[in-house]
Amino acid sequence: MFDLSSYLARRTLLIEEHLEALLPQETSAGGRLIEAMRYSLFAGGKRIRPVLCLAAAETVGGTAADALSVACALEMIHTYSLIHDDLPAMDDDALRRGKPTCHIAFDEATAILAGDGLLTFAFEIIASRCPAPPARTLAVLSLIAWAAGPQGMVRGQMLDMVIQGRPANVQEVEHLHGLKTGAMIEAALAAGALIAGGTDSEVAALRAFGRKLGLAFQVVDDILNVEGDPAIMGKAAGTDRIQGKNSYPALIGLEKSKEKAQNLLNEALESLSLFDFRADPLRAIARYVVTRNK
Amino acid sequence: MFDLSSYLARRTLLIEEHLEALLPQETSAGGRLIEAMRYSLFAGGKRIRPVLCLAAAETVGGTAADALSVACALEMIHTYSLIHDDLPAMDDDALRRGKPTCHIAFDEATAILAGDGLLTFAFEIIASRCPAPPARTLAVLSLIAWAAGPQGMVRGQMLDMVIQGRPANVQEVEHLHGLKTGAMIEAALAAGALIAGGTDSEVAALRAFGRKLGLAFQVVDDILNVEGDPAIMGKAAGTDRIQGKNSYPALIGLEKSKEKAQNLLNEALESLSLFDFRADPLRAIARYVVTRNK
Repeated sequence: MFDLSSYLARRTLLIEEHLEALLPQETSAGGRLIEAMRYSLFAGGKRIRPVLCLAAAETVGGTAADALSVACALEMIHTYSLIHDDLPAMDDDALRRGKPTCHIAFDEATAILAGDGLLTFAFEIIASRCPAPPARTLAVLSLIAWAAGPQGMVRGQMLDMVIQGRPANVQEVEHLHGLKTGAMIEAALAAGALIAGGTDSEVAALRAFGRKLGLAFQVVDDILNVEGDPAIMGKAAGTDRIQGKNSYPALIGLEKSKEKAQNLLNEALESLSLFDFRADPLRAIARYVVTRNK
Repeated sequence: MFDLSSYLARRTLLIEEHLEALLPQETSAGGRLIEAMRYSLFAGGKRIRPVLCLAAAETVGGTAADALSVACALEMIHTYSLIHDDLPAMDDDALRRGKPTCHIAFDEATAILAGDGLLTFAFEIIASRCPAPPARTLAVLSLIAWAAGPQGMVRGQMLDMVIQGRPANVQEVEHLHGLKTGAMIEAALAAGALIAGGTDSEVAALRAFGRKLGLAFQVVDDILNVEGDPAIMGKAAGTDRIQGKNSYPALIGLEKSKEKAQNLLNEALESLSLFDFRADPLRAIARYVVTRNK
């Protein structure tokens, strides 16, 4: 029987250690920048994207070591996006995972630069620290940059700002989530499979899994934002911008939202049908994402 | 006789056309992001970094085509750094090259995202559009990310914020400029040489040229900021943060600053001594940088 919590504990430890090695503390004059980058990087994230990336590498027969640098780069890109999204000009959030956000703990200029630094450093890590053949590493870097950039996550952030304050329909909201959150979850799975030498059809299957999982993740987030306990969530429930009147519960109702999450889970699991037991961690993670309470 | 102005006109045209092809206008819902990215990218920059990159490629016997994508990526990274540097939390500049800055023309959130988009897109372009062998492309991407990131340009921006408002000495100011401006100029030259297949010693020589040129550029900027005509400069003279009491003229005097610029020019030209006529554009650019009036 596969034990998810022990698997996740081992995996997050591996990722924490590698992140620590990639971005050690500094005491020199530039230290404040690194300190701010570390502050947000080690602020208690669940490391979902790097865990998915490593699991995808193993699903196609590779090892966690093949994908570890890519996985850590994904977490840095995720962290940069949170830092910038929390800025006063964006969501203006003072708390993230129960801790002051980067611009509150430091200042706005430092937070902008910490985000810029994490994003840039992420690409440097992929380019300089992957054990894979160069052509494969380049393809992985390209797909991650695409997913993170103006056709992916950044575009999603922009759409989120544009839609803010006006009612949207389910299609618009789904498109937005697909860009803002989904693109990087898909990329984590596709990158993990690709860096470990997965075939085109394996990469495509894991990308499809990521698409369903990312959407399920968001639907569940919306549900938790209505039902969640603030003490467990680490932030006030009901405060996220896109949640609220454009959340799934508001658009299609709470019960339909839960049904949707369950259907997405089933479709996600279906995408993994070509893989053997090595995809068990991904199957367990997908089930966890839909049944979590924070 | 080498004609710099006609050379620069041809080169900037080539770069403008390629930038236009890489980032065409868009009319869809995400269009505002692309519009903001384009607004700053086509706001009249002198394209110094991409021109240097192409010239470095030719200096080692390559063609402009070898380096064109890398050159455009460098300009995108430069533009992102200007957009973020102009933000209210940073330099709070309303004008850049005589035009409203991105956050004035759009809004602050859009400017943050436009910068993020340009930075991310730059790496995607390098990873997916270089005709060079993958290993070489990866090395180029890595050196550019290093120069742009928390050990290079972003670190320089941070140091600039830290030093702001207090007097610094020449060594500190020089260190700051080396990171904030110099790192990416060096990277433009090293990347151009490397992507075109330059040898290690050729890359090192062009990097040394870049180091001297970048510093000369800054010293001359400081001088122009004291002496410059606002109508020619496109911004009010004497307004840049680091200029002012930490400028070269303030620290070592105007005459010594001019002497320093001249010495740096001589050293830059010396770095090119192993190259033949193919380095003439770089020699002419170096002379232009030191003698320009804006």
